[in-house]
Amino acid sequence: MDLMLLFDYIGTMVFAISGTLTAAQKKLDIFGAIFIGFVTAIGGGTVRDMMLGNTPVSWIQSTDYFFVILFGIIITVIFKKAVLKWRNTLFLFDTIGIGVFTVLGLEKALSFGIDAPIAVIMGLSSAVVGGIIRDTLCNEVPLIFHREIYATACIAGAIVYLILAHLGVAPEIYNWVTVATIICIRIIVVRFKLTMPTLSLTDKIN
Amino acid sequence: MDLMLLFDYIGTMVFAISGTLTAAQKKLDIFGAIFIGFVTAIGGGTVRDMMLGNTPVSWIQSTDYFFVILFGIIITVIFKKAVLKWRNTLFLFDTIGIGVFTVLGLEKALSFGIDAPIAVIMGLSSAVVGGIIRDTLCNEVPLIFHREIYATACIAGAIVYLILAHLGVAPEIYNWVTVATIICIRIIVVRFKLTMPTLSLTDKIN
Amino acid sequence: MDLMLLFDYIGTMVFAISGTLTAAQKKLDIFGAIFIGFVTAIGGGTVRDMMLGNTPVSWIQSTDYFFVILFGIIITVIFKKAVLKWRNTLFLFDTIGIGVFTVLGLEKALSFGIDAPIAVIMGLSSAVVGGIIRDTLCNEVPLIFHREIYATACIAGAIVYLILAHLGVAPEIYNWVTVATIICIRIIVVRFKLTMPTLSLTDKIN
Repeated sequence: MDLMLLFDYIGTMVFAISGTLTAAQKKLDIFGAIFIGFVTAIGGGTVRDMMLGNTPVSWIQSTDYFFVILFGIIITVIFKKAVLKWRNTLFLFDTIGIGVFTVLGLEKALSFGIDAPIAVIMGLSSAVVGGIIRDTLCNEVPLIFHREIYATACIAGAIVYLILAHLGVAPEIYNWVTVATIICIRIIVVRFKLTMPTLSLTDKIN
Repeated sequence: MDLMLLFDYIGTMVFAISGTLTAAQKKLDIFGAIFIGFVTAIGGGTVRDMMLGNTPVSWIQSTDYFFVILFGIIITVIFKKAVLKWRNTLFLFDTIGIGVFTVLGLEKALSFGIDAPIAVIMGLSSAVVGGIIRDTLCNEVPLIFHREIYATACIAGAIVYLILAHLGVAPEIYNWVTVATIICIRIIVVRFKLTMPTLSLTDKIN
Repeated sequence: MDLMLLFDYIGTMVFAISGTLTAAQKKLDIFGAIFIGFVTAIGGGTVRDMMLGNTPVSWIQSTDYFFVILFGIIITVIFKKAVLKWRNTLFLFDTIGIGVFTVLGLEKALSFGIDAPIAVIMGLSSAVVGGIIRDTLCNEVPLIFHREIYATACIAGAIVYLILAHLGVAPEIYNWVTVATIICIRIIVVRFKLTMPTLSLTDKIN
């Protein structure tokens, strides 16, 4: 599980970088960029923990996440051009982060005795809510609602997790199979530029 | 109270439909529409429960709300044209939902020992916050802040509830009188196109 | 500490006034103005309490805050022109409010055993989140992300608080030194029109 924690930290840091970059693109000031970097990194887990009643919420129980996030933000502020150049590498870590957040959210929800379908939503929330808050604070319709379907990857991964857990597979195995599933689906989606259809109200399909 | 629960489910489903339709009008993709359908349906109760400390929040304690919401969303996605045609019927169920949400929010707050004026706010929050989150995520100023005064109906209903409860009327009676009050006021408001005045900063008064 | 409570109420009232005025400038109706006045006043403390698990959240545990907020909103609705004229006085009370909110947020977090750096964030959140929600609901990028650096004043004040507390100074003293530090920094910032630099992605640095 140490490796899972390491990837949790890396995912958190990459989310902080993504928040800081989005804020910079909107020409916010440094405080805005730092604030949005933080909220992007901790938003999903915070909302999940508040809904479960797992308080004080995870990230405020120790300073580990704080320093990981601060490190991500400082890196972005100082080396912003380099960070922008490494985008493809960041994309990979972002994807790993999403996978790990989904697994951790699922685990946490199941440990609170939450039923499987709702636990899937808790896993998904852990992965996507930070980005939704980031875009809302930047006064944009959240990216995830109209571009790039990583939510689908999370849900598919969560279902794989539940099936393997139900079949009695060891956690050390199904945790990583889940993360791998999410990473594979997301890479396929991005490589082939797959998008979700919109729910048009004017087209002919009843 | 079984009838109250039934109306709670119907209200939840209608809120999910309203969220899904709003997302579709903003040309979001199917994931965005489903996500916003969910948040619209559970947002008010979730914020109320998190403020009260009633965790895990109501809708994640069983799968009932999950399936009710999923049903509403699937209906909307498959039969969107029909759903749009039934708007007037939906309006009625939406109004019933608002009434029931107000009563349930009030009850929950009072059961936590919250004082009456704050319990009214908790009832109102249960009814309106889902729609406020829906509009905010769609990057719009919430509809309820500048059109159609159903909040007033909720507050009036909540006051009726408190008066009747104080007079010793049975819950079976005052619950429904409250819901009926909210429905009547809202229908009158919509029929006569009543709106709240704006708080202009440039007009001559005072 | 009674004076601290008095300033907490005054700060809450001034935040309610600021929310109501912002809503009026966006031409929202009276319900929208009242709702946003409330949320601006209680938003920061509510999010802090929900993250800490201090539930029911502070403002719903008694009707004191309710009446203070209602008074601020009614004053604004009735005497809006006068309120607009007293802007400079309001600015002073707003600044006092921010200082007091920071101290109270810090204290609350430390009483939950939260580590110092995270407690600073909890103090800051108490002071700034209400305004962030206010601007987001009004469909604006939050003011604090691109104008006027009072967040910096809060963080500086919080650090002064922690240092004095660590040195064994009495709470009656360090509480007020913290508030005074925040007020002084903010007044200097506004007087000299200091702003935070933006984090431009196109400039030459690095």
